[in-house]
Amino acid sequence: METLKVIKIGGQVIDNTSALNDFLEDFVELKGPKILVHGGGVEATKFAEQLGIEVTKIDGRRVTDADTLKVILMTYAGFINKNIVALLQALHCNALGFTGADANTIISKKRSVIPIDFGFVGDIVQVNTKTLRTLMSQEITPVFCAITHDENGQLLNTNADTLASELAIAFSEHYSTELYFCFEKSGVLRDVTDEDSVIKELNPQTYENLLKSGKVADGMIPKLDNCFRAINHKVSQVSIGQPEMIRDTSVRHTKIIK
Amino acid sequence: METLKVIKIGGQVIDNTSALNDFLEDFVELKGPKILVHGGGVEATKFAEQLGIEVTKIDGRRVTDADTLKVILMTYAGFINKNIVALLQALHCNALGFTGADANTIISKKRSVIPIDFGFVGDIVQVNTKTLRTLMSQEITPVFCAITHDENGQLLNTNADTLASELAIAFSEHYSTELYFCFEKSGVLRDVTDEDSVIKELNPQTYENLLKSGKVADGMIPKLDNCFRAINHKVSQVSIGQPEMIRDTSVRHTKIIK
Repeated sequence: METLKVIKIGGQVIDNTSALNDFLEDFVELKGPKILVHGGGVEATKFAEQLGIEVTKIDGRRVTDADTLKVILMTYAGFINKNIVALLQALHCNALGFTGADANTIISKKRSVIPIDFGFVGDIVQVNTKTLRTLMSQEITPVFCAITHDENGQLLNTNADTLASELAIAFSEHYSTELYFCFEKSGVLRDVTDEDSVIKELNPQTYENLLKSGKVADGMIPKLDNCFRAINHKVSQVSIGQPEMIRDTSVRHTKIIK
Repeated sequence: METLKVIKIGGQVIDNTSALNDFLEDFVELKGPKILVHGGGVEATKFAEQLGIEVTKIDGRRVTDADTLKVILMTYAGFINKNIVALLQALHCNALGFTGADANTIISKKRSVIPIDFGFVGDIVQVNTKTLRTLMSQEITPVFCAITHDENGQLLNTNADTLASELAIAFSEHYSTELYFCFEKSGVLRDVTDEDSVIKELNPQTYENLLKSGKVADGMIPKLDNCFRAINHKVSQVSIGQPEMIRDTSVRHTKIIK
């Protein structure tokens, strides 16, 4: 089976132009089919503030009212996605930007308002890989922002980690799929204040212990849940760390183990 | 040769939700390969005002400084394009949104600052049809906003009429191509205040006479220049009028004649 790499970038890797450029230079060097998934939270928050739209978060997750959805659409699908596509093209990588609505690639269902009304937030119910496989066979690289649709005309904000994870799971039927979560930390840390405390291999038992000890930061819990879901659904490799790990496997990072 | 329809919508067809929905319902009924190109000027202008960004126009054409480019990217590629894609998907049309950077489909060159500096505005130099043809053979419908790139990482604002016209010209090598410009007027009018004065067939001589008489409105001149360029470069049919003309050819409109 051919190997497919699904790489998610978020946090400061996107917000810092030089970090983004460094990452993209490494990304284009990767051989074989690959998909890039990007978040963009900080830029959207800044932009919402500029427009006087208040950002509400519950449990670290953004509440998406109609105004916020518009801001997210503009920032993720417009500004960030198209800039990344243009930068990749300049590096001779034939990128093509996607939301889940494009070519009906990712269908989601608006999340129930019970127990918490997160607004226009979608939970992924289906990934259609056919068009993406055709494009990748022609050396086109899909670049996804974290927006999906419900097939009834409603665009929905979707967690970017979950989107990357669900893409990787869906493609595991056709490829040996590797999933990488790149952010500013060196991996999952035993001690969040100490970059040297990276856990090299994280198995479900160690994760449970970390959760019990309260040592996993709020934002990390959904990310790690996505990691374990992926490794338990035929994704062959799941890694968390700084973007350098995609270029050099000896760079410290965390591998998720079944 | 198979027929390809390239349809450009602009003006009030985009800004009015019910007009847009009516158009899209007709659009999805069209048989065979088709490409939708949309403008979005009014929405971008409103949005720029909201952000306190001043819009400068010279000869009816927007000057695109860095802030304006960002607004255009967000409005055209993010908000309008993705909403149209989602609405088309709801109507069972498998739409996929594009800028010219996506899959390197439309390459442009930043316009010379002499005699007028229009800022980040691109003049199209190349259209790559291969990926689009593959997608259309799989019944995917490309939806273009009027943004291109220079292959060096710079996105550029591009006239939507020109973009539609250049797409139609490039595809004429592979299809019998029909180009439609849909807007709120019934076609080219002899008297701009009288919707009943539609010119049924406009040839270069009539056009020249209209120009001399000063009866063509400012915004119409570049549109008509694009029409004549298309009909002179192997596009088989060029029509201007209200969106209803794509559904019912008996609806009055203007046909461009060589």
